[in-house]
Order: sequence, then C-alpha cells, then structure tokens
Amino acid sequence: MKAGYLQFQPQFGKPEENISKIKELIRDKEFDLLVMPELANSGYLFTDKNELKELSEKIGDGIFCRALKKISSEKNAYLVSGICERAGSKFYNSSVLVCPDGKIFTYRKIHLFDTEKLWFTPGNKSPEVYEISDPKSGTVKIGMMICFDWFFPETARTLALKGAQIICHPSNLVMSYCQRAMFTRALENRVFTITANRTGKDVREKTELGFTGESVMVSPIGEYLCKGSPDKDEVCIVEINPEDALNKNITQNNNLFKDRRKSFYKT
Amino acid sequence: MKAGYLQFQPQFGKPEENISKIKELIRDKEFDLLVMPELANSGYLFTDKNELKELSEKIGDGIFCRALKKISSEKNAYLVSGICERAGSKFYNSSVLVCPDGKIFTYRKIHLFDTEKLWFTPGNKSPEVYEISDPKSGTVKIGMMICFDWFFPETARTLALKGAQIICHPSNLVMSYCQRAMFTRALENRVFTITANRTGKDVREKTELGFTGESVMVSPIGEYLCKGSPDKDEVCIVEINPEDALNKNITQNNNLFKDRRKSFYKT
Repeated sequence: MKAGYLQFQPQFGKPEENISKIKELIRDKEFDLLVMPELANSGYLFTDKNELKELSEKIGDGIFCRALKKISSEKNAYLVSGICERAGSKFYNSSVLVCPDGKIFTYRKIHLFDTEKLWFTPGNKSPEVYEISDPKSGTVKIGMMICFDWFFPETARTLALKGAQIICHPSNLVMSYCQRAMFTRALENRVFTITANRTGKDVREKTELGFTGESVMVSPIGEYLCKGSPDKDEVCIVEINPEDALNKNITQNNNLFKDRRKSFYKT
Repeated sequence: MKAGYLQFQPQFGKPEENISKIKELIRDKEFDLLVMPELANSGYLFTDKNELKELSEKIGDGIFCRALKKISSEKNAYLVSGICERAGSKFYNSSVLVCPDGKIFTYRKIHLFDTEKLWFTPGNKSPEVYEISDPKSGTVKIGMMICFDWFFPETARTLALKGAQIICHPSNLVMSYCQRAMFTRALENRVFTITANRTGKDVREKTELGFTGESVMVSPIGEYLCKGSPDKDEVCIVEINPEDALNKNITQNNNLFKDRRKSFYKT
C-alpha cells in the first residue's frame, strides 16, 4: 500500500488555513494512508483555557473532521491526524482515523507532555488497533499514538501486541530524540512506524516554541524509509507491504513475541 | 565513580589466555566498576554440547571466577563479566557481579539468541538489582542484562523499575543495531548503560561468526559517553555520577515513572 506522512506548520488558531494548506499539499498525491501532525487543526502553544473552547471540536462535528472526511472520501484513502478534541467540558489531545466510508475512530493521548497537562485531560482508554482495507494486502491493522507517547516503550508495545502492523504517530516534537529512537520502536516490535512531525514555531504573547520536523517512516527491520527536512512542508509516500509486519521471526530460532519472558518482567 | 567497559576478543576454548588478556588490558587502569563481554571465559561459537562441559564453570569455583575475585580484591573494584556457567547438568549464558569482598551475584540470560538455544538453558529468574558501594556517591544500584536481552524493552525497564542506576550489559553482538539503540534504552529509563561488546571472529570447523565491537556507554539523558572501535582491544573508563540516574523528571511536569499509565498497557 501507499503510506506516508504530511509534514507542515499548523498556524495557531487558524483551522481553516490549516485545512487549506493540507488540501494544497496533497492535491497531486496518491496514497492509501496518510498521517498528519499532532494538533493539526489548532496549533500547539495554548496560553489560556478559553482558547481550547474556541479551537477544539467534537469529533465528527467540526470543520476539521468534516474536511478530513471529504478528503478521505475523494481520495479513497485513510487519514490519521492529530486534533484538539472537545468532549463535554473536557479537552483531549487526540488523534482521529478517518475512513473513506465516513467512519471516525479516536485515540486520546495517554502521556501528556509538560504544559499540555494544564490544558488537556489525559487519555482515558488503552491505545486500540483498527482494521483498514488495503487494495493489495486486504485487511491491515493500524494503531495510533501521539508524540510523547513514543517515550514510553509500553505504548508501541501495547499496539504491537494488539496486532498493529503500522503505528501512526502524529507529533509536535520539540527535540530530535524521537526521530532517532523510532528505529528502535519499529525494530523491537517489528512494525512500520510513521511519525508525522510539524515544523516551524508557535509564537504567542510572551512565549514561543519551535518544532523539529524531520518526520520519519521506519520499516519493521529498522530501515528509515523516509526522513523529512527540519523545516519544509513535505508529503512523503512510500510503497510498503504491511504483511512484512506480520513476520515476528528475528532469527530461525527467535520469535519476537514467543520469546518474551513475561513472568520475569516487572510492569 | 569511575565506570566503564573492557572490549576484547575472547579466544574460543582458552579461558587462561582470556584471563591473561584481561589482566594485561587493565594493568594500569583505575576504576570502580568494569564491565566485560558475554562469555568472556569460553568464547561464543560452540559446535557440540561436550564443549560446554569443558568450558563452563560452577560460579565461584572455577579459574575464571577465581581470577575475577583476585582482580576485584586487588583493584578494590566491582567487575561484571559474561561467563559460561555450569549448574548441575545445566549450562547457562550468565553474567557475574564480582565484589571486592569476594561476594558473587549471578544473572542468567533470559532471552537466548538463535543457536544459543541449542546449548544453554534459558535464565530461570527475573533480572535483579544489587547494591554496590561507591567511594563518592555511597550506595549505587546496578543490574545486569546480557546481549540480546536488549532487544526486549521489558528487560531494561524491569531493571530500572527495580531501581537500577547502571545497567551492565555484557555482549557478543553480531550486528550493530544494539549500539544505536542503547541510547533509547538509557533515555527511556533514565539510567546509565554500559554495553561491553567483543570483537573479532570465532572460527570453528565448518563455521565462523564475527562480532561488531563498538562497545558503548550511555548517560541517563541519552549522551554517548564512550564509543569503542569496531575491532580493537580497549578499556574505556568514564567518571560518572550515578545519582544522575535517580532523577526521573523529564520536564518540570513529567516524571518517567509517575507518568506511566500501567492500566492501559498490554503486557
């Protein structure tokens, strides 16, 4: 299947401009699965909880989800994107999987980074795996995690143990550790990983924050299939065979899952 | 404390030569903790189970342990080394921690790699943490894992959760993934890691196997403190402050252990 990432700089507080930018960047692109950055609708650097009310949306209902549904349907492709979610009086740093038939699945970030704790409620469910349909390999299982979730090996492990072949990873990374470490996450779980990072800065009243770009896509044997630039808008699409992630044999005598010694692990 | 690794090429089936080489390499060195490669007494590439009988030793009893005890006492330093262990009719791919007072603690590799499964019984206990005494920082907790154990993030995590500040990692690595990945293991657990790899080849009748050297020592924030050459005998000693590994705060709002969402992890 054709899978990849879209790297760009979301404009803080301008969901409509962000939608336009996404549309412009993918206009001539063909893909079956595309991953976009964390909080791609709203931007990252909130300074006041009132901003969240204004910039979040109920999943399925707001302009960002509607736009993604339209793109998904037109392109006949699956989209994963970070989104600032409103659910009742709570706000979540979430990721949606938007399907061509209009279905939407949501993951809420379980490991909030630094000041995100001021704004968001931590995710209240375990990361789950969803079946998508690929023209070539049939059913493919994918999972979502968001940015700082990478730091905890348990997140990607949970998704792999639930059967994920591809881990979609919307991000707003401020450092470059993750991009170097994703080879470990892919390798140790024998899965594809797609880290879609944002670029540029959010500049707000008294503060600013820069992001590191360099989105990465890694194969189940730890090859970097694609590496983004630190600062440019980019769409990278790679032809992959998701069945490669079903093979958990490391050597003729080692299987990644069967060799685990669960009774000896402290959790 | 002064901690580091000794990288060399154990000669297959020649424990006395290996002891001599170790003695020669550390003669002028000062250290408090030194980590040596996996199976440093025996070499790696067994071709027949009878060889194990001959080249293994009961912990504490054989020439290799006796030599390590002597060095430990003379140098007033802790030694960690891979060793081919015999226990009754079983053989283990083990690591010993040899203390200046003569005490020895043993860890038996729980994830055997490839054909090691033909020769060794898998480790029958969880990796444990041991207190050692450092002239500067007082009591320091260290753990051991062996080579392929690195591949499973649960091993280092188990040691970190049990309080390890330094993970000692005797290795016989045939590929170079691990050396790149140890930065992730150190960072995700905020521990020091010391990977002592071997160099050279084991050449036996019909088969041979090469090892990749490039031993690495990494700090709790993912810095490579020392990187070995691919093929030379080397002793690398670095002054570290083990207390750095007690600080599990990642940002002012994130703590590595407190932020774990155990109830959402699949194990």
